[in-house]
Amino acid sequence: MDKSHLALLCDYYELTMMNGYYLTGLRDQITYFDVFFRSVPDRGGYAIFAGLAEVIDYIQNLRFDAEDIDFLRGKGIFSEDFLRYLQQFRFSGDLWAVPEGTPVFPNEPLLTVRAPAPEAQLLETYLLLAINHQSLIATKASRIARAAQGRAVLEFGARRAHGAHAAVDGARAAFIGGCQGTSCTLSDALYGVPAGGTMAHSWVQMFESEYEAFRTYCELYPNNVTLLVDTYDTLKSGVPNAIRAFRDVLLPQGITDCAIRLDSGDLAFISREARAMLDAAGLTGCKIAASNALDEWLIRDLLSQGACLDIFGVGERLITARSEPVFSGVYKLVAIEDAAGRIQPKIKISDNEVKILNPHFKKIFRIYDRDSGKALADQLCLHDEEIATDRPLTIFDPQATWKHKTLRHFTVRELLQPVFRSGGLVYEQPPLAQIRDYCAAQLATLWEETKRFKNPHRYYVDLSQRLWRIRDDLLRQNGRADMARQVSEPK
Amino acid sequence: MDKSHLALLCDYYELTMMNGYYLTGLRDQITYFDVFFRSVPDRGGYAIFAGLAEVIDYIQNLRFDAEDIDFLRGKGIFSEDFLRYLQQFRFSGDLWAVPEGTPVFPNEPLLTVRAPAPEAQLLETYLLLAINHQSLIATKASRIARAAQGRAVLEFGARRAHGAHAAVDGARAAFIGGCQGTSCTLSDALYGVPAGGTMAHSWVQMFESEYEAFRTYCELYPNNVTLLVDTYDTLKSGVPNAIRAFRDVLLPQGITDCAIRLDSGDLAFISREARAMLDAAGLTGCKIAASNALDEWLIRDLLSQGACLDIFGVGERLITARSEPVFSGVYKLVAIEDAAGRIQPKIKISDNEVKILNPHFKKIFRIYDRDSGKALADQLCLHDEEIATDRPLTIFDPQATWKHKTLRHFTVRELLQPVFRSGGLVYEQPPLAQIRDYCAAQLATLWEETKRFKNPHRYYVDLSQRLWRIRDDLLRQNGRADMARQVSEPK
Repeated sequence: MDKSHLALLCDYYELTMMNGYYLTGLRDQITYFDVFFRSVPDRGGYAIFAGLAEVIDYIQNLRFDAEDIDFLRGKGIFSEDFLRYLQQFRFSGDLWAVPEGTPVFPNEPLLTVRAPAPEAQLLETYLLLAINHQSLIATKASRIARAAQGRAVLEFGARRAHGAHAAVDGARAAFIGGCQGTSCTLSDALYGVPAGGTMAHSWVQMFESEYEAFRTYCELYPNNVTLLVDTYDTLKSGVPNAIRAFRDVLLPQGITDCAIRLDSGDLAFISREARAMLDAAGLTGCKIAASNALDEWLIRDLLSQGACLDIFGVGERLITARSEPVFSGVYKLVAIEDAAGRIQPKIKISDNEVKILNPHFKKIFRIYDRDSGKALADQLCLHDEEIATDRPLTIFDPQATWKHKTLRHFTVRELLQPVFRSGGLVYEQPPLAQIRDYCAAQLATLWEETKRFKNPHRYYVDLSQRLWRIRDDLLRQNGRADMARQVSEPK
Repeated sequence: MDKSHLALLCDYYELTMMNGYYLTGLRDQITYFDVFFRSVPDRGGYAIFAGLAEVIDYIQNLRFDAEDIDFLRGKGIFSEDFLRYLQQFRFSGDLWAVPEGTPVFPNEPLLTVRAPAPEAQLLETYLLLAINHQSLIATKASRIARAAQGRAVLEFGARRAHGAHAAVDGARAAFIGGCQGTSCTLSDALYGVPAGGTMAHSWVQMFESEYEAFRTYCELYPNNVTLLVDTYDTLKSGVPNAIRAFRDVLLPQGITDCAIRLDSGDLAFISREARAMLDAAGLTGCKIAASNALDEWLIRDLLSQGACLDIFGVGERLITARSEPVFSGVYKLVAIEDAAGRIQPKIKISDNEVKILNPHFKKIFRIYDRDSGKALADQLCLHDEEIATDRPLTIFDPQATWKHKTLRHFTVRELLQPVFRSGGLVYEQPPLAQIRDYCAAQLATLWEETKRFKNPHRYYVDLSQRLWRIRDDLLRQNGRADMARQVSEPK
């Protein structure tokens, strides 16, 4: 799938709506759309934002070629004027986003688009697809890497990924979230995610004996050996043959840095037995890698049972985020500009209260405790609000306004950064390794209670008083006083 | 991601093994690899095979360009001879596969590759990725389409798909499995999956009133209207405004074919109320579409509660196969050829019995009852075996050999078809609509008991006596008599 084709990677309704905006005088209507999500996968306490690089690449290459136009013409519902407009299409709007690798929370804008209605509408599908996918995998990788408590986690899932992009971009997202490398060669070539890998069972089967397969591999790659020891019988055959090959080939060269990989059986029991056999053979430098249906829960359990494992190869449960493979990002209209350029907030109500959105063009301030450096809360504000750090700040729960708290010693950081201005890229993308480091550093600002796998403490995403009142007024105007001010206005 | 780059979309160990085969005299070793899977997602009774078109496309475009070679050279572990070999790389082998849309079962080969070791090894990652992804989605779509009992199911999940390929190829797979269309425009442009869609909430929000938004849409697209009625209040505002717009714009033109879409709230209750309101307004031809976290279970429940729904838009739970997002296809060496061209079966044992494979170069015969046309069992045979249909056939359970059955009135069909011969494509790919029809027809040959969502009856995949004995002998030779002949040899 070439980049030149991605303009059509949109839901068909984006095009019917665009054509409609174009034909009904809304062509130049300036709109504001937010990307936000409603719940953290696996009921976790935080998500990791990723996918911005893909979004930038998409927008920069967003063109309709002659073939695309012909295809649309064939549908018989799009006006020729509109098709000519598509032929000239370039994104001309503004876009703000949270940096990749940022821990993020439900109901705050991860990305905001300001553009004429047809342009902003077109972006919806691809922006969501890229952000939902990469944030999903980065979030899962962060959980799995934390379960490994500093041991290396390698992303091994390409073969179970949902297509080519899922494999390659998934490996990138997993790296941002905390993996040390990937099996996916292309993710290394395109993004610099370190790729590695040594042998499959087929290598072992291809030789007359397991020992011969191991010995040959040690001779070929003495400085990077991980022998897969479960093709026939791990403890009776695999580990003894690995020890023999290491002794025959590596030790005479003075090489003690090597590894074995377990891919079946009980990993806690077998790893302890294998560790004892390796140590007894003097191979204390030999590491033990494990793969086979691993995720954060199994890794934590294995380590708590004394498994002797140094490296985790995590496949399908990471690359598909198996336990909850959906990141719930949505793209919603939050404001328009009137003829005078004034911003008019918009709301969508819905019968499910959870689907109600935060209107208006907004900023996010993350508030940190000045002493500990820990993140205390995020506050959503109107685009022109600032937070003064030299006087106390009272924040309150937007659903339960009687819950409030006054902060005194704090610093703030604005999360949304300008990415496009009038269609031009103004954002300098950090190198991937820097994104990964930033993610780790930001994660360290969250309390452990927020990072618990089960029943984490909820991180507060509050509204400024001005924003809260606008939202409340819109709910009332739309006849949903039941959802507005369930309690008194916050003070 | 351009097609020219996909050669590097492989696990890194494919390349270290290829280089090893190349350097150690195994360069021309003819190997046989099978793709098979171990369990049906969602504990279902059958899976739908898909992804072959993507495999064919991949193999036909499989080249390493200068940039790829430079990248690999930079790794410092690949020999220059091997890199020259990669520069000239073309797939020269044979490949057989089950046609797309075929219902398939665990432990039978869906695809077999016969090629020199390095070539066969390289294909592993991409073949698995394509087949695992598309078979996963086709299988899920088949379940969901069956739950809808003939009502239309539309694939709406692009925004929650795991990247661009997942959206576009997922829509194709969903169509094969039984969906009627997709929201994904590019899947229509590339594959001809019918794309459709009308409006999002943003359309409704963009106008001064809900009625105006509806009326404008009806005026623009009178022949294809589906109004989204839950932006403010479905029953108090959305449905009445839709009725008014239909009456004001469509009915005067004699158009009665229209629809509303519910996207929140209780779909059973709201759809019944909406149906009554539409009928009372004389809009009996107006269909009701539903979306919002649908899957086979919820659709079945809604219909059993008398929901008045005609069309289901299914998003994230289909495009990610949310309840079980992993298809467990693997790629395993099953045989090699010796110097004289004789096929030598290979086996892999493993400590998990479920991971033991069926060795040798094989065929699959699907056996149908001559009278009912129903599929009775699949039999895996050696590549040179035939099944005579003019005499009784005794089949037996390969794990429980005392369970056997003699068939008398049956026909057989061989499932694996030649796709590549000596690197050349010999398979004529059917048009997509024909694959979909074939899938539906083949599904009709399975007993309802096998298609039950929960605890389905197991479909038998048996081994021919010759194949069973070869497998049994290999298990004994590898010292795993415990896994061999747990009972007497089948008669």
